[in-house]
Amino acid sequence: MKAKIHVTLRKSILDPQGNAIMGALSGLGFDSVSGVRQGKVIELEIAEADEAKAREQIEEMCKKLLANPVMENYEIELVS
Amino acid sequence: MKAKIHVTLRKSILDPQGNAIMGALSGLGFDSVSGVRQGKVIELEIAEADEAKAREQIEEMCKKLLANPVMENYEIELVS
Repeated sequence: MKAKIHVTLRKSILDPQGNAIMGALSGLGFDSVSGVRQGKVIELEIAEADEAKAREQIEEMCKKLLANPVMENYEIELVS
Repeated sequence: MKAKIHVTLRKSILDPQGNAIMGALSGLGFDSVSGVRQGKVIELEIAEADEAKAREQIEEMCKKLLANPVMENYEIELVS
């Protein structure tokens, strides 16, 4: 089973990388853009046919390694 | 209008960051995971009501700044 995990900074946390992108975009003339935030996507293949069990395992991976729950939110999307 | 842009490395490009995550996951006992790839998500707010025009502008941003078309694929998702 394939999974996509989106890890994004919590709304209350400043995102300097996003701000840098916004600055660069306005420098290139894209003035209509406001509020850029950057996050991560992690795509993985997990050898687990049961959707609920796969989700549970991935949830644990997120808590232990993939995301920092103090600063980041994560969203798990299972594909097929 | 909000947009999410997924930037991922092309399949043919090695992903050392993904491999490092996979190594760390097996170290933590998650042996069922194979093939981890890491990408970026960029969320932005664009002041453009027309969907086609917004997509066109974002496409140009991707080509000029957000992605490296030689090594990366991008996918644009417009939200509302």
